[in-house]
Amino acid sequence: MKRTAFYLSDGTGITAETLGHSMLSQFGSIEFIQVTLPFVQSDEQTREAVARINKAAKEDGAKPVVFSTLVNTDHRAILHGCDALILDLFGAFLRPLEDELGVRSSHKINQSHAIRDAESYRIRINAVHFALDNDDGARTRHYDQADIILIGVSRSGKTPTCLYLALQFGLFTANYPLTEDDFDDLRLPKALMEHKHKLFGLTIDADRLSAIRSERKAGSKYASPRQCDMELRALEAMYNKHNIPYLDATELSIEEISTRVLAMKGLKRRLQ
Amino acid sequence: MKRTAFYLSDGTGITAETLGHSMLSQFGSIEFIQVTLPFVQSDEQTREAVARINKAAKEDGAKPVVFSTLVNTDHRAILHGCDALILDLFGAFLRPLEDELGVRSSHKINQSHAIRDAESYRIRINAVHFALDNDDGARTRHYDQADIILIGVSRSGKTPTCLYLALQFGLFTANYPLTEDDFDDLRLPKALMEHKHKLFGLTIDADRLSAIRSERKAGSKYASPRQCDMELRALEAMYNKHNIPYLDATELSIEEISTRVLAMKGLKRRLQ
Repeated sequence: MKRTAFYLSDGTGITAETLGHSMLSQFGSIEFIQVTLPFVQSDEQTREAVARINKAAKEDGAKPVVFSTLVNTDHRAILHGCDALILDLFGAFLRPLEDELGVRSSHKINQSHAIRDAESYRIRINAVHFALDNDDGARTRHYDQADIILIGVSRSGKTPTCLYLALQFGLFTANYPLTEDDFDDLRLPKALMEHKHKLFGLTIDADRLSAIRSERKAGSKYASPRQCDMELRALEAMYNKHNIPYLDATELSIEEISTRVLAMKGLKRRLQ
Repeated sequence: MKRTAFYLSDGTGITAETLGHSMLSQFGSIEFIQVTLPFVQSDEQTREAVARINKAAKEDGAKPVVFSTLVNTDHRAILHGCDALILDLFGAFLRPLEDELGVRSSHKINQSHAIRDAESYRIRINAVHFALDNDDGARTRHYDQADIILIGVSRSGKTPTCLYLALQFGLFTANYPLTEDDFDDLRLPKALMEHKHKLFGLTIDADRLSAIRSERKAGSKYASPRQCDMELRALEAMYNKHNIPYLDATELSIEEISTRVLAMKGLKRRLQ
């Protein structure tokens, strides 16, 4: 049976989507068609959303599931008239929170992912540009400003992790690719040696690495299982020799790698 | 009064944080100390979390607020014994969802931000590398593969937006900076002209742009309000002349810019 899941929001829809993905991941056997309806900010737009939801209910022959982060009381009342299972975040949690805190909430729409202040924006933009400028060992002279320096072999997930840490947490991240040349005597490159306490290593399963590299250069030595295996063995020997904390990224998403690195290094985020 | 907010999760904590930020943004007058407790996956770890929460309750002299995405029933029972306001996502929404869908959920921990499949991972990594390779007009010969090409003046938010669209939605993004040279006759650079339907413009308030640029090159002509104003006027004339859809990014967060661009261009995300 076809089911539609709606993510309904007066803002970006990111909270509703995150919430919904999290809940739906518990129902692996059901396939959902997912529709995000962001920036629903008026009675009129809420009624349009309700019409779309009711249409899906009719077409599917089954109630859609609606994850809603609408804040406005009138809009929520309109929404609750539709033919769907409504999981209403503010409906469920706002009242107990108000009671505990002893204040009424602002009921202002589109607060969640609105720009908080110029300072946070600045930190974030600077972090992103720092990550770009210090990607892939391009520059090493600003490592004194880095919060963390990720190391690992080519295509093991360093770059996306650095960008995620920059965008999400405002951290100043650098990354440096270790290559065959570095493995000869297991000596750390000088630029890294000077900032050893900032280093964090990634490793990955050799077959997985080979598959990822093959996409880029199929049939090359670079992508061969043998080469990948050799590099990864040397890499882990290097981590162990220098007591560098590291993580196997094979089965992990970018979010998981990032949050684990944060926890393992005890890093304090610059953005909440 | 000091209040502590805990984000408690058996996974990365991202869902709990997103949910919590969204709720707390409704209470602007209260300052929260925010603590994320990720990867809580055993009875033992849950009890440790409860101890931390109770300690905060004592120190603050006020109940902490706990946003929990714990899935395991035993862990949730342990959690509910603590001295705090517990906002329990799965407690509130899982049962109605199970009833509507007519199946029991898996109650598997750490599903939400776990790697879904190798294919999604691949799309995401490729999107990130595409964004990097096609940042800041560095290369224009792969624009045929781009889903969208963001244009605008220097430091108007193109790069972070491209990276966010790549990481979050798996979109292939490029961006191209328009400079004074391009404004002489309001003619679009050839590389852009050929992909006009993929263009999306950003603009920004001149004072804001001047402040951002001043951080990079204080006192320069580049950062002067006059120069910024001149560039932005010409830019908007260019957007209008060529019928390029655009957005004023001044008051918007990266998430808002990204989701609005997605909606305005009618782009289909490659990742859910």
